[in-house]
Amino acid sequence: MSKNLTKRSEDYSKWYNELVVKADLAENSGVRGCMVIKPYGYAIWEKMQAALDTMFKETGHENAYFPLFIPKSYLSKEASHVEGFAKECAVVTHYRLKMAEDGSGIIVDPDAKLEEELIVRPTSETIIWDTYRKWIQSYRDLPILINQWANVVRWEMRTRLFLRTAEFLWQEGHTAHATKNEAVAEAEQMMNIYAEFAENHMAVPVIKGLKTETERFAGAIETYCIEALMQDGKALQAGTSHFLGQNFAKAFDVKFTSKEGKQELVWATSWGVSTRLMGALVMTHSDDKGLVLPPKLAPIQVVIVPIYKGDDQLDAISERIAPLVKELRAKGVSVKYDNRDTYKPGFKFAEYELKGVPIRLAIGQRDMDNGTFEVARRDTLEKETVQADEIVAKIEFLLEDIQKNIFKKALDYRENHITEVENYDEFKEILENKGGFISAHWDGTPETEERIKNETKATIRCIPIDVKPENGVCILTGKPSKNRVLFAKAY
Amino acid sequence: MSKNLTKRSEDYSKWYNELVVKADLAENSGVRGCMVIKPYGYAIWEKMQAALDTMFKETGHENAYFPLFIPKSYLSKEASHVEGFAKECAVVTHYRLKMAEDGSGIIVDPDAKLEEELIVRPTSETIIWDTYRKWIQSYRDLPILINQWANVVRWEMRTRLFLRTAEFLWQEGHTAHATKNEAVAEAEQMMNIYAEFAENHMAVPVIKGLKTETERFAGAIETYCIEALMQDGKALQAGTSHFLGQNFAKAFDVKFTSKEGKQELVWATSWGVSTRLMGALVMTHSDDKGLVLPPKLAPIQVVIVPIYKGDDQLDAISERIAPLVKELRAKGVSVKYDNRDTYKPGFKFAEYELKGVPIRLAIGQRDMDNGTFEVARRDTLEKETVQADEIVAKIEFLLEDIQKNIFKKALDYRENHITEVENYDEFKEILENKGGFISAHWDGTPETEERIKNETKATIRCIPIDVKPENGVCILTGKPSKNRVLFAKAY
Repeated sequence: MSKNLTKRSEDYSKWYNELVVKADLAENSGVRGCMVIKPYGYAIWEKMQAALDTMFKETGHENAYFPLFIPKSYLSKEASHVEGFAKECAVVTHYRLKMAEDGSGIIVDPDAKLEEELIVRPTSETIIWDTYRKWIQSYRDLPILINQWANVVRWEMRTRLFLRTAEFLWQEGHTAHATKNEAVAEAEQMMNIYAEFAENHMAVPVIKGLKTETERFAGAIETYCIEALMQDGKALQAGTSHFLGQNFAKAFDVKFTSKEGKQELVWATSWGVSTRLMGALVMTHSDDKGLVLPPKLAPIQVVIVPIYKGDDQLDAISERIAPLVKELRAKGVSVKYDNRDTYKPGFKFAEYELKGVPIRLAIGQRDMDNGTFEVARRDTLEKETVQADEIVAKIEFLLEDIQKNIFKKALDYRENHITEVENYDEFKEILENKGGFISAHWDGTPETEERIKNETKATIRCIPIDVKPENGVCILTGKPSKNRVLFAKAY
Repeated sequence: MSKNLTKRSEDYSKWYNELVVKADLAENSGVRGCMVIKPYGYAIWEKMQAALDTMFKETGHENAYFPLFIPKSYLSKEASHVEGFAKECAVVTHYRLKMAEDGSGIIVDPDAKLEEELIVRPTSETIIWDTYRKWIQSYRDLPILINQWANVVRWEMRTRLFLRTAEFLWQEGHTAHATKNEAVAEAEQMMNIYAEFAENHMAVPVIKGLKTETERFAGAIETYCIEALMQDGKALQAGTSHFLGQNFAKAFDVKFTSKEGKQELVWATSWGVSTRLMGALVMTHSDDKGLVLPPKLAPIQVVIVPIYKGDDQLDAISERIAPLVKELRAKGVSVKYDNRDTYKPGFKFAEYELKGVPIRLAIGQRDMDNGTFEVARRDTLEKETVQADEIVAKIEFLLEDIQKNIFKKALDYRENHITEVENYDEFKEILENKGGFISAHWDGTPETEERIKNETKATIRCIPIDVKPENGVCILTGKPSKNRVLFAKAY
């Protein structure tokens, strides 16, 4: 199966598109820009959801659900917010279809026009802050720490599976606080949770930072982000957490009575990650043979393939396998025993390589005679023969080791692809020939940022949280700068 | 708090609406017909989802995700399906907003009109069968057993929280099979799973049955259902499972090569339950003091309220409570220790009664001295004093006992509200004065069903699966009938 996969070195973009489809993660639907997430892809997303949801709940957040539709007037209430989202909205204008009178088919009933158009939510700040107004009277009602798992729609013109789709799945947290400090701390906390999730579960190293004004969320005072680096040297924004100040409280008139009895505007944050993470996962670890999945997110952690001739051999192998499967499952390891007789072992090997199953066990007649298994790990493709009485320990070791190993590999790549440059020529040279993050001085103006973007397609991915003060001069204008920022071409 | 709740005997409908809002389950949003599901309500829905999802996966189903939007032409492909759903659709016609040139605000950009309108999914058979066409070539590709958790929109004119909302959350299973028998067995299996969930988790007794032709899902050959009875004597359809025959395979040209090498149309089922179950849960068990929740679905199973004067007493109680909370949590019991000093115990008692927390523990100075707790169960409102060393066992007993007791209470009510009648006068009399299910003979025609509905508002809820053959005459037309069916007024 993997033979048909384009090589990364030939065409990285094509490799990605093919891999997502061939590994049964997702495919395009008949609806422009909307994808179908297939069961194998959705199973990975469910594991991501479960891990994130636990982390959200451990930090005091609760889930809720707000409407899919946003009245046009709500969206318009926060000026920079509507400017950011108006250009890519799905707009509901009617609420009924009918049979055309000339019998030509089903048409939109012109008599069923909505008085006010509804926007399919591109994000839910407006509908949520309209609701919070009713929930918040006193400081006792604060903080509100709510998350929702939902679908959202942004009418992107150029779409790519997982990375940029018209409809996508995500979680969006929306919190309300009595003080600025508390809201800022929340926004920072969520950035840290996202980073922890990306690194510990996805095995994707990320840089935590702040967005520049240009790259901020529409309506935010400050946008915190985590930035990952893909194998082609392009960056990918993997999650954002926004300190929204009092912008939405102002727009929706949300005030509370403080302990001191004063009326004050409420402070806000919002934060989200989406099915885009699936794209980051695929592009960080996978190779020319297919997906490489971190054990913590793999729907199947161990696959067992029997190699046999005739039913008797298969039965004997199945009998040998049964207690192992049981023992592994009891330990919480997800195991698949693939005893399909419609496919040959070689086909199965290629299929599970393509699908990124971390550990493959094969057992044939010689293994039966010797009491062994052939164990293959997906990340390094190494194989070894393991005695049956050591197999469970070996699997437990490998699940941890693969998780660590692919993180380290990605981290090494990332560390080798942060390049400090001192001038614009060097900047362009590195961008063109090496890629990755470029650490450079910038004069702090949107104009310079814009010019660099137009000339090179590189954007400022972030000002790292742990950036060190360092006097320098802007690579483009030569004006003074107090610290470096990270540039990259990005998804 | 509960003092303000309308009594069921005064106005059942008002009681329901008030309870849903006051118990923090849900509220109306600024978008017509769309609700906000609040954290407490959503936590119950999450427990329902988790239980159902486990049952689906145990029976071999996988989750996936299909687009929110359905092209108008897809919806039109199955004739009875579009007829059933066209009248209540949200239609997306444009993909952009812009600033009006006269500066009057944001308007829909007339240049961004879609070539083909998109319908916000009211249900996903059409988009899914359009996808299945690409997935199914051979009998080896079957069966496909997929479920999705999603939001759907049906533009209802009269809406009520949970029971009938323009947008609601649900799961929809869509399966594809090689044979008719297999598809019928699947549809029956899912009806049985729904019944098991309703009875064992929600503690809501249900009658399993078949819908009449009139009440069938638009596009189904047979609709299986589970019907529950609310405390006001009205029925509520709690879940449906459809045998779709080859209707969608025909409409979307989905064929497979059989083992014998023949091209055959694929057989289909679909099945769903929605946030409507929340309404059934509320209306089955709750009373004039508020919600009564089954322990298996209660977000908080045990609440502990300290009764104290001053910080020293509170500290002492908190210290006594800590190991109990730990022990209960280790056993998987969800416990809340409500040590808020902003509210008095009486207020808290009323709040947790309103919210249906199954077990309330109170501990004051006398209990501290005597080594006891006051234990109150929500279903019967009984209180007793329990020794500290017996409290864990008591709680474990009560959690099971409350679950059983509220089921039995609902079952007794239901059994007392199935009335056999022999003629139309009796039918109308029972319907008017007693309510509940009415078991009666019907001549099997849609015309009779329609007349009874128009004259009495009662519909045929189902032909029970376990109906006994019995010769009789139709209560309206006197024509012969071979079995009774169940009528009721319904939500």
